[in-house]
Amino acid sequence: METHKFGKVLISGGAGFVGSNLVDRLLKDGHQVTVYDNFSTGSIKFLSNAKKYNKLITEEDSSYKLYIIEGDLLDTEKLTKSMQGCDFVFHLAANADVRHGTEHPDKDLKQNTIATYNVLEAMRINNIKKIAFSSTGSIYGEPKIFPTPENAEFPIQTSLYGASKLACEGLIEAYCEGFNFQAWIFRFVSILGEHYSHGHIKDFTQQLVNDPTKLNILGDGTQTKSYLHVKDCINGILCAVKNSNEKINIFNLGTDEVISVNDSIKIICNKLNVSPKLVYSGGTRGWTGDSPFILLDCSKIKRLGWKSTHTIENSIDETLNYLIKNKWLLESE
Amino acid sequence: METHKFGKVLISGGAGFVGSNLVDRLLKDGHQVTVYDNFSTGSIKFLSNAKKYNKLITEEDSSYKLYIIEGDLLDTEKLTKSMQGCDFVFHLAANADVRHGTEHPDKDLKQNTIATYNVLEAMRINNIKKIAFSSTGSIYGEPKIFPTPENAEFPIQTSLYGASKLACEGLIEAYCEGFNFQAWIFRFVSILGEHYSHGHIKDFTQQLVNDPTKLNILGDGTQTKSYLHVKDCINGILCAVKNSNEKINIFNLGTDEVISVNDSIKIICNKLNVSPKLVYSGGTRGWTGDSPFILLDCSKIKRLGWKSTHTIENSIDETLNYLIKNKWLLESE
Repeated sequence: METHKFGKVLISGGAGFVGSNLVDRLLKDGHQVTVYDNFSTGSIKFLSNAKKYNKLITEEDSSYKLYIIEGDLLDTEKLTKSMQGCDFVFHLAANADVRHGTEHPDKDLKQNTIATYNVLEAMRINNIKKIAFSSTGSIYGEPKIFPTPENAEFPIQTSLYGASKLACEGLIEAYCEGFNFQAWIFRFVSILGEHYSHGHIKDFTQQLVNDPTKLNILGDGTQTKSYLHVKDCINGILCAVKNSNEKINIFNLGTDEVISVNDSIKIICNKLNVSPKLVYSGGTRGWTGDSPFILLDCSKIKRLGWKSTHTIENSIDETLNYLIKNKWLLESE
Repeated sequence: METHKFGKVLISGGAGFVGSNLVDRLLKDGHQVTVYDNFSTGSIKFLSNAKKYNKLITEEDSSYKLYIIEGDLLDTEKLTKSMQGCDFVFHLAANADVRHGTEHPDKDLKQNTIATYNVLEAMRINNIKKIAFSSTGSIYGEPKIFPTPENAEFPIQTSLYGASKLACEGLIEAYCEGFNFQAWIFRFVSILGEHYSHGHIKDFTQQLVNDPTKLNILGDGTQTKSYLHVKDCINGILCAVKNSNEKINIFNLGTDEVISVNDSIKIICNKLNVSPKLVYSGGTRGWTGDSPFILLDCSKIKRLGWKSTHTIENSIDETLNYLIKNKWLLESE
């Protein structure tokens, strides 16, 4: 954190999966953090470690180390006010429900595209120029090259989620050019680890806890993807913000490993010690717009010295431990 | 038009520059056309030829050949109702004011991104599955390859306008995947010809008509771009819709020729028989995010049999003739 003195940081989606892990890390590193979250998918429980900083008053400026603001990114007034005095925004809040995009097509538009526009405008009004943004490997659609590099060919979107993240990236880049912002954009694979609360590892675990004899699987189980541990993800984000200083810094963030849905099921079943009947549905893909294969070329961020420290099996194992310890997550939708 | 029976067509921005030319052409080809336009930059004067079809009742269905609806794309109710019974949408309405994006950053978001989402939703509700869309060569940002092909590398946006068009393309593609739409996306260079009402040829002509002794130029005049005549543009659009039948059909549309701003000034000054003092301002570029060089690789659409039939000099000459004959355009903002 030496080369980039963040100063005061605002984290949108700071009560979410990746966001709350980042909050913990930045507080530990000594930063002052404002969490801005509407708690729709985020949870105050994810901030239970962080909340102890809520009480700590620093000697220098007698201010709290952690502010938690319940607010929606569509509430521009609250958002703009919440950013006052901040120096850096980590914009992690998003509708991350890739799968159900076509059931409510306005959700990605509002919660991702328009929300990101609101973040950028609130930053502009507050004269904050630095933003880190969680994009997605889904933005490549169905790429022709694997592992897929950041400068892959002009992508064709296959999901409303991917389309909305592409729109966000474009907006952020235009603000860099037009308003002299600086941006770090991260195209994530799926993330696993503590505070994981959403995705097929949870769905499977939830199903198997309820009925260990049967497991419903969307698609034929051959969909093969890369996964990253949330701690490695946070390390990657901070490594890039520290060490890459272009106007626009775009990084893939994933592992060189992939795993098929079927192989992840084996790990889960072993861990839970169950042997369910596997029931496949929906053709070769999990859902419309699902990518059958995701593997990102992460050599760009590796050149900055970052590397992943967890195997996918590791990450799944830790995620299961976390879910089993936090049954409330398996009870929620 | 044989392979694609459009049936009833809705043209958003049908009173605009390209839109009104398309209206004339489709009416001439015998189609039933609904114009949907908010007349903010479009003009009823551009529909003066078309309006004679307003009175023609076809024998088959006793209906008008042309409907003109004054409506905004943000008025989703009116839009949805206006699309009833249509089979094909040409979505050409847009905020095309590339230059002033940073003065009102919400304009491109609303009038391009959200408007396009509204068009797609109105289509979905009306079970219309085919859309042609006017995108832009600006979407490539500052490409590394010239002429720039459709599958150039992942673009970095340099303007809010480009960013909004990228967002539109992504949305349209996601609707193709998610809702089984079929799309023809056209990345235009700058268009010239009849009904031209916006851009530097107009700005220069306007200035010189007011004061033939002085011409103010944004940038150093070396910005070099490709221009296409609107009739060639319309031919290109219809050629692609007729002859390309993928789920998503993306085409660059331009000429192989380029011209510098300085050379276009020479043509204009010759034509108007004036010798103004040239006053440059604003550095090497016209404005923040202006591309210093635009040249698109149009071999994809040429392989369908299309070609441009006007030189740039031709196109500028015709545009000047049109502007001089239509002085009201030089009086408007």
